[in-house]
Amino acid sequence: MNFHTRKWVKPEDLNPNGTLFGGTLLRWIDEEAVIYAIVQLGNPQVVTKFISEINFVSSAKQGDIIELGITATHFGRTSITLTCQVRNKITRKSILTIDKLVFVNLDKDGNPTPHGKTEITYAYAGDRP
Amino acid sequence: MNFHTRKWVKPEDLNPNGTLFGGTLLRWIDEEAVIYAIVQLGNPQVVTKFISEINFVSSAKQGDIIELGITATHFGRTSITLTCQVRNKITRKSILTIDKLVFVNLDKDGNPTPHGKTEITYAYAGDRP
Amino acid sequence: MNFHTRKWVKPEDLNPNGTLFGGTLLRWIDEEAVIYAIVQLGNPQVVTKFISEINFVSSAKQGDIIELGITATHFGRTSITLTCQVRNKITRKSILTIDKLVFVNLDKDGNPTPHGKTEITYAYAGDRP
Amino acid sequence: MNFHTRKWVKPEDLNPNGTLFGGTLLRWIDEEAVIYAIVQLGNPQVVTKFISEINFVSSAKQGDIIELGITATHFGRTSITLTCQVRNKITRKSILTIDKLVFVNLDKDGNPTPHGKTEITYAYAGDRP
Amino acid sequence: MNFHTRKWVKPEDLNPNGTLFGGTLLRWIDEEAVIYAIVQLGNPQVVTKFISEINFVSSAKQGDIIELGITATHFGRTSITLTCQVRNKITRKSILTIDKLVFVNLDKDGNPTPHGKTEITYAYAGDRP
Amino acid sequence: MNFHTRKWVKPEDLNPNGTLFGGTLLRWIDEEAVIYAIVQLGNPQVVTKFISEINFVSSAKQGDIIELGITATHFGRTSITLTCQVRNKITRKSILTIDKLVFVNLDKDGNPTPHGKTEITYAYAGDRP
Repeated sequence: MNFHTRKWVKPEDLNPNGTLFGGTLLRWIDEEAVIYAIVQLGNPQVVTKFISEINFVSSAKQGDIIELGITATHFGRTSITLTCQVRNKITRKSILTIDKLVFVNLDKDGNPTPHGKTEITYAYAGDRP
Repeated sequence: MNFHTRKWVKPEDLNPNGTLFGGTLLRWIDEEAVIYAIVQLGNPQVVTKFISEINFVSSAKQGDIIELGITATHFGRTSITLTCQVRNKITRKSILTIDKLVFVNLDKDGNPTPHGKTEITYAYAGDRP
Repeated sequence: MNFHTRKWVKPEDLNPNGTLFGGTLLRWIDEEAVIYAIVQLGNPQVVTKFISEINFVSSAKQGDIIELGITATHFGRTSITLTCQVRNKITRKSILTIDKLVFVNLDKDGNPTPHGKTEITYAYAGDRP
Repeated sequence: MNFHTRKWVKPEDLNPNGTLFGGTLLRWIDEEAVIYAIVQLGNPQVVTKFISEINFVSSAKQGDIIELGITATHFGRTSITLTCQVRNKITRKSILTIDKLVFVNLDKDGNPTPHGKTEITYAYAGDRP
Repeated sequence: MNFHTRKWVKPEDLNPNGTLFGGTLLRWIDEEAVIYAIVQLGNPQVVTKFISEINFVSSAKQGDIIELGITATHFGRTSITLTCQVRNKITRKSILTIDKLVFVNLDKDGNPTPHGKTEITYAYAGDRP
Repeated sequence: MNFHTRKWVKPEDLNPNGTLFGGTLLRWIDEEAVIYAIVQLGNPQVVTKFISEINFVSSAKQGDIIELGITATHFGRTSITLTCQVRNKITRKSILTIDKLVFVNLDKDGNPTPHGKTEITYAYAGDRP
């Protein structure tokens, strides 16, 4: 799994108990997953359809640097299934895992439409010379 | 199920496709659920431990008024399980459902501790004369 | 008065003195009042016209759960008058009161137009079968 | 009246009807007024106590530049009373007026304390050698 | 140089080390500079083209009041060059300086177009009858 | 240069002309650069000292996916110099370049202190077993 987007946990991201607010973390993940889906499907018109169980393994605190990793695990006819892991960038300790995030590929009228993809596009996995 | 917190979908809440951004919705739900757990357990020191499958039933658009409903479905020894439904306030159409959100009751050192509750406290369920 | 929307006071909501920033509270109230007006008048095209004296009774601090209560007190021909109370959800201590918030019902061209309502619509007051 | 802080109305500041969200405007005003009070009283420990009637004279739209003007109108023993006007920077058209905003000067324990000021400090009114 | 917009450094503006986040400060400056350019050129269609060296002279902390000063230093044919200084409103200590911010005047199609201005418009420099 | 953090341009990120607000972009860059500096220097106590010329090459619009690339170009005794490029993730078109961002390594008292690093730490450049 490649980890791309990283975040620096700032006071604006905390809950009143002083740890990273779960809702903020979910917001970050949803954005990262949508971006991944758009890039893979080559279509900006995708929607979150389903998110499987979310396990909050450990928390993060102010000043922590966290990174988000997403990988496609299944290409359906009109959908794509991703898996997600969030971890501390420095300690590599897992913060959260989500087994499945399913996005649906839409046409201009907002209806599901086949995307024609069957595997991860290499361009996303890294950044060559 | 009682619906309490409501939101007016503003431009700042939209994704680039012009509908309510899923991550923003998840952030709203997490806050509402934490509030419910805190009130029920009478302890501000609670953490999100687990969120079950999230189904995005329909989307919301700019100007929609949505409301969030939460109810406790199970009281464990150190945890509380909630269920959540988000719907359009005017049309009552379902937008999202989450079967289970599990919160854990912590002591001052951040360790799980029994909360001693076994049923929904009436005060939360409504607001009588 | 029914209390619906609730907020969990997070670091992002504080002023530099460590209490709930008044401007943030006013923003929350305005949104809640607009929602109430829209639901009552059945028209999303309403604007805030006037807010009467605002009394800051007590402050709120990080971690507090507050709830906002709104009730219609007068139905004019093209306007609706609301009253507002904000209080601590746990202690029920009053935080702020506003005697009158006046909203005007607009037509598609942005001009005041009669709304035809004379009393509170039941649907808003609670959530029953 | 001197006008200092200015804002550029961006999409994030709009309500769903496409005009400046009233709650956002109130948040801007509260910050500007607190700053004025702190500078005049020479004490960062001030709180909003009371805001008189708020008249929404006209609205602002995306791209508008607005400016906020504040002036002290009365120095009490432990309080200061300000008046506020918000207008369009280009057209000078009034957007909102507030007759009185009262701030209270606090000591370190959060109790009202005399501030010893009786008139506007020149330094605030402009910026000269 | 005239100083107009002022900010009260709140928790939401801090980096994890507890001082004003540089990125937030840059966001404030960009908005203030764009506003200045729009007012001077009498055209809302301007874009940031270039920002010269930024020197972070000192930091700001929670509760500080800072003020932003902008002045035009050069009027090109289709551009305007501004200089910026940010300082602590109370102590007058410099926080940041930027020698040059260049904005370009655009026509409706987004192409550079002559603005016809050669000097600072008086109206911006102050507020008189 | 490796590109890590990516952003999906949402309505909340736009200026009133409908393109990505420059100030928002600068805020994103500053966070990404600080994160890079912290990871390289192994010290969370770093501050932005200097940013060289910023060239806005092209703009981004709603829905664009952009990615931020940072690389260290020089290790001083107490400082680190980074270079930055922002581009469109899909088209690879350059949006902005910054030649130099200088961060200073601080000790617990906030004074510059040697960091002892002389080259890029491998861990940051990718994510391998």
